[in-house]
Amino acid sequence: MFSYQNLHQFTKAIFQSIGCSSEDAQLATDVLLSADLRGVDSHGIARLSGYVRLWEAGRINTNPQVKVVHETPSTAVVDGDGGLGLVVAPWAMSIAIQKAELVGTGWVSVRNSNHFGIAGYHAMQALAHDMIGLAMTNASPLVAPTHSTERLLGTNPIAVAIPAQEQPPFVADFATTTAANGKLEILQRKNLGAPTGWIQNATGQASVNPHELKAGGALLPLGGDTGSHKGYCLGSIVDIFSAVLSGANYGPWVPPFVSFLPLPANPVGAGIGHFFGAMRVDAFRPATEFKAHMDNWITTFRNAKTKEDQEKVLIPGDPEREMEQKRLLAGIPLLEPVIKDLESLGQKFGVSFG
Amino acid sequence: MFSYQNLHQFTKAIFQSIGCSSEDAQLATDVLLSADLRGVDSHGIARLSGYVRLWEAGRINTNPQVKVVHETPSTAVVDGDGGLGLVVAPWAMSIAIQKAELVGTGWVSVRNSNHFGIAGYHAMQALAHDMIGLAMTNASPLVAPTHSTERLLGTNPIAVAIPAQEQPPFVADFATTTAANGKLEILQRKNLGAPTGWIQNATGQASVNPHELKAGGALLPLGGDTGSHKGYCLGSIVDIFSAVLSGANYGPWVPPFVSFLPLPANPVGAGIGHFFGAMRVDAFRPATEFKAHMDNWITTFRNAKTKEDQEKVLIPGDPEREMEQKRLLAGIPLLEPVIKDLESLGQKFGVSFG
Repeated sequence: MFSYQNLHQFTKAIFQSIGCSSEDAQLATDVLLSADLRGVDSHGIARLSGYVRLWEAGRINTNPQVKVVHETPSTAVVDGDGGLGLVVAPWAMSIAIQKAELVGTGWVSVRNSNHFGIAGYHAMQALAHDMIGLAMTNASPLVAPTHSTERLLGTNPIAVAIPAQEQPPFVADFATTTAANGKLEILQRKNLGAPTGWIQNATGQASVNPHELKAGGALLPLGGDTGSHKGYCLGSIVDIFSAVLSGANYGPWVPPFVSFLPLPANPVGAGIGHFFGAMRVDAFRPATEFKAHMDNWITTFRNAKTKEDQEKVLIPGDPEREMEQKRLLAGIPLLEPVIKDLESLGQKFGVSFG
Repeated sequence: MFSYQNLHQFTKAIFQSIGCSSEDAQLATDVLLSADLRGVDSHGIARLSGYVRLWEAGRINTNPQVKVVHETPSTAVVDGDGGLGLVVAPWAMSIAIQKAELVGTGWVSVRNSNHFGIAGYHAMQALAHDMIGLAMTNASPLVAPTHSTERLLGTNPIAVAIPAQEQPPFVADFATTTAANGKLEILQRKNLGAPTGWIQNATGQASVNPHELKAGGALLPLGGDTGSHKGYCLGSIVDIFSAVLSGANYGPWVPPFVSFLPLPANPVGAGIGHFFGAMRVDAFRPATEFKAHMDNWITTFRNAKTKEDQEKVLIPGDPEREMEQKRLLAGIPLLEPVIKDLESLGQKFGVSFG
């Protein structure tokens, strides 16, 4: 187990080593480690060396001039100047929140960014302002549209955070595929078969081989074998809102997260794209009224009758919040390969790990 | 085959017979029959007698005073005064569009309404304004949240319409369940088994019996057997945006579409709820630029390599648009029970059918 404080100190030092200001390194670390706290291990510190390699490859600018390049009272396009998505995204989300303060809602599409950690973190920034938050991002193409064998979409997650009064907030955060790529990576490491409906092989046939993507296979959109057209719709909407609205790369042109893959030829935009929204609850009805009804909504669902083999009905965000409470106290477990990777990263930059 | 013109004339006359103004009857008919034209037969004229029975039961007000009850520059709450959703929804969507003209985007949550036909129709109203349109609605509870045996959510559809330049628009319109209830109704009529992942029985076990809902079963959220928590998230978001934001009924309190079921006791709001959005494309980047990239997005996906047994990759909205073109020329097929139902409806009001 590693304490959150120790991992935070280490991660911040690494971000500073690659040129981030202290403030940016702090923010990037907060965002990145929120994944570890919330139990989304695939998106947290395990990816730190990946971000560093992107910087080494000249694909991340650690001193970006992030700016609004187009706006109306309720919208903006933000250019991330090739910065860390972990820094660009909170900046863009804060613009959405500012606009919502003024005109009820704010909607920000972002270009020229990089991976932004977990979508849920960004959506949740709205909660303290009594706003509903939305966050989505496109990602490198691993997903085949329904009927296709080509990988044209990323796992393109959507997060929506909704405040309540006495109850903890509703926080949905999910990839628009049957399974997030991180879950597949876990099966790859353990060499275990995947459930049906997650992946297809290079000719589009159903497969349970977790290594299928290396052989030209693809992840399936949400709905899997029985209705992937709906997941395909959702992933497409995320791609278009994040990148066609902003002028980022979309579809097969989205740059890969891993530095050993070349950038796609003939880019159609700049970097990867995100989309953020903030809606003031009291732009619709008094906040206390809304939040009291959210409490009722949440308790109604949480107290619903369960199937015999299930303990309770979960509210989106419940498992992640419980994990966060637990890990803040008990520490964060890391897999052996991740520990080794972080140790050698620390050695490279003269920062001691653990 | 029945010509669109004849069905339109008949439907409009029926709506006028139950007290709609000529203008409202025209609009309600346009919306209702757009489902028949687009091939969503479950949501079209087959439901006309259902709307009439709701009016007979005093649950629909055919002369509503629809009004904005709360607003900011980018938001509004509309009270539908118990009117036909087919009339209330276009009115609310037009408010969203007006707000988008002024401040970039417009977002309207609606209470005290009824079923609004197909979501896609409403989202598509934005297209002519070079806007992206969104439409969603909650509906009577038929869907069990993940792990539960209780029906707490409707099929809660989401529609998103996005304009392009040379290419026809992207129009996604889908229930947040594995299968829309209309598809289940077709299997019920034909007494055919349902695919796995669509339904569960009263104790929450997987079932292929299409009549399971009458025995306490439920529809499954999108994702079915392998990941219904994501569909549960989506259906919940639709419910909250449509009803908790507006002050409509949510969850188990949403009134049923069928008049023979009683209204839920202790309502938590008024009628059913909808949510609409309009985003001006040029609130983000010049419209010609956006639409040229949408053309590129659409052709890239449409021309993607297919699996051996598939002819082409579809763009959301393709099948419905092709169906509409076909049915406008060749007419609309109706099932025998629907024809009989419409004939007796016509007799009741002295309007000849067919």
